[in-house]
Amino acid sequence: MSAEFDLIQRYFLRPAQSAILGGGDDAALLQPTEGHCLAVSSDTLVVDVHFFADTDPAQLGWKALAVNLSDLAAMGAKPRWVTLALTLPKVDDDWLLNFASGLYRCADQYGIDLVGGDTTQGNLSMTLTVIGEVPICPVSSDADAHAQREGRSLALRRDGAQLGDTVWVSGELGEAALALAAMQGRMLLDFDSLEAFSRRLHMPEPRVALGLALRGVAHSAIDVSDGLLADLGHILSASGVSAVIDYSSLPLSPLAAKLADHAGFMRSVLAGGDDYELCFTAPAEAEPVLTELSKQLGIRLTAIGRIEAGSGLRVLDAQGQCMSVEQAGFDHFSHVE
Amino acid sequence: MSAEFDLIQRYFLRPAQSAILGGGDDAALLQPTEGHCLAVSSDTLVVDVHFFADTDPAQLGWKALAVNLSDLAAMGAKPRWVTLALTLPKVDDDWLLNFASGLYRCADQYGIDLVGGDTTQGNLSMTLTVIGEVPICPVSSDADAHAQREGRSLALRRDGAQLGDTVWVSGELGEAALALAAMQGRMLLDFDSLEAFSRRLHMPEPRVALGLALRGVAHSAIDVSDGLLADLGHILSASGVSAVIDYSSLPLSPLAAKLADHAGFMRSVLAGGDDYELCFTAPAEAEPVLTELSKQLGIRLTAIGRIEAGSGLRVLDAQGQCMSVEQAGFDHFSHVE
Repeated sequence: MSAEFDLIQRYFLRPAQSAILGGGDDAALLQPTEGHCLAVSSDTLVVDVHFFADTDPAQLGWKALAVNLSDLAAMGAKPRWVTLALTLPKVDDDWLLNFASGLYRCADQYGIDLVGGDTTQGNLSMTLTVIGEVPICPVSSDADAHAQREGRSLALRRDGAQLGDTVWVSGELGEAALALAAMQGRMLLDFDSLEAFSRRLHMPEPRVALGLALRGVAHSAIDVSDGLLADLGHILSASGVSAVIDYSSLPLSPLAAKLADHAGFMRSVLAGGDDYELCFTAPAEAEPVLTELSKQLGIRLTAIGRIEAGSGLRVLDAQGQCMSVEQAGFDHFSHVE
Repeated sequence: MSAEFDLIQRYFLRPAQSAILGGGDDAALLQPTEGHCLAVSSDTLVVDVHFFADTDPAQLGWKALAVNLSDLAAMGAKPRWVTLALTLPKVDDDWLLNFASGLYRCADQYGIDLVGGDTTQGNLSMTLTVIGEVPICPVSSDADAHAQREGRSLALRRDGAQLGDTVWVSGELGEAALALAAMQGRMLLDFDSLEAFSRRLHMPEPRVALGLALRGVAHSAIDVSDGLLADLGHILSASGVSAVIDYSSLPLSPLAAKLADHAGFMRSVLAGGDDYELCFTAPAEAEPVLTELSKQLGIRLTAIGRIEAGSGLRVLDAQGQCMSVEQAGFDHFSHVE
């Protein structure tokens, strides 16, 4: 690393709150909580693939961390630590200052500590690795080694969906994809809608509190990053089940609902991605708990379908008819079947 | 991620040995060992900055993990888990197969599990995040919160060097830098030397066993990745001390020693980088332990100098005269002073 790139580190040298030793040594030293397992996830954002070169660096700093926290939320893990590997074409003080401020704002909001990383020269990209914690259920001493290892953790996994489960989704779908469609000239939006939807695209709010509250309630969970159908599809294939979704039940904001007749709308809602909501399955008897949870957290929770035997995913229209793959706008998601 | 890039994952889908849940969910679930803290380090390798585009992918896979393990070795941490974030311009089956085989060979040799990651499209680069474990010393129940938090871990830190410590280095220095000089046409090497030195450059062997054995013996440690003077300089500034190094004591292989009169040789040994040896300081009374350790592990350990009061770093020649900065070939490392 050149001396110039050493300078970058000063933007990220805020002392870590919850580490024995933060950045500046060969490795960070972290004290995990007893009786917990670790949830670890890495995500890379690359310029021109995941974001535009002229993206507001403060928003980019927020989003780079937020999308990683969304993975922890989907596991029901409490965020603890993050490392940042940042690759930059050149040192740009303004850009770095803003990027760091956005990243730290997100870190503070979700109580996670930046504990180290690496800065290198090259095409703009960043890899964040987040570490969270999930409690382990006490295992009786006579449990076999397999049971011990396979985990009595309370983590929300993709492979736990059960027949008869209700499929739920948090918040509202499609707005980030609608903002992207507008930015790419595929859709015209009024000012209010563009502003609201752009915020969803650039400053997603990972559902960390919801993920924690769903431990012991949901049977399976995933975050909606690649689009509802693709991500629910991962739950279905991991759990060996199928699902039926009611299109008319999908949660939309009033602003989004006004666009329901636009070409491409259905695709944005079902397959648009970047929603960073949680999609989860829970037994029918969990409904009162989830209704109460929704009130407590101020997060809309909507039952959108049910888990059935078999494989694949069907979407029903308002008349209960099975929508064709083309109608639903997810032809290129046929690998979900 | 495109479906094409989903395919990449199959090269890295070997089941994790020591994880509750490896790749394929939102996050990996890992069970840390009770009574240990975590050592976490991220390093990025970028094409044309850290390696050539035509580097043998099997060697690259090895090296990408090995340089991260070297950071854990320098902390005295036992390697446990690694995540890989790989960015590739296109899917090349041969390249991926070889890269994965090199990475897994290194993982197997050092007993570390690949537990997840991300594949994206872009300029070739990779970020690995390694997680190791270091035992925590039991702390008496009346120790204050600060002492608890500041860590009674047995980790080898940069800030522990003490007056009177001997400065040690493992293995032999300069060979990776000599190989690079030959590849860049700055030095002519015979076939045997080129082959031996290239192996040091491309397939470094992180000193993991040595790092573990130095817990409780060394006062401070760092791995030599940026060159002996720069890296020892980090120990000195973190510990608030100075050091005197005897140039004639620096460990060289017989093949390297033959090149001692070449222009650029001294720079390769003192400031070349990519050695991935450990530089550490230990009290004088540790010498018998270190001599025994050297025999047990089959790793050369050489006393090269001593820690003194003040700041900065002096290199003495065979006559005990202080070498000038230019002589020692580290003019651009003057920020170490």
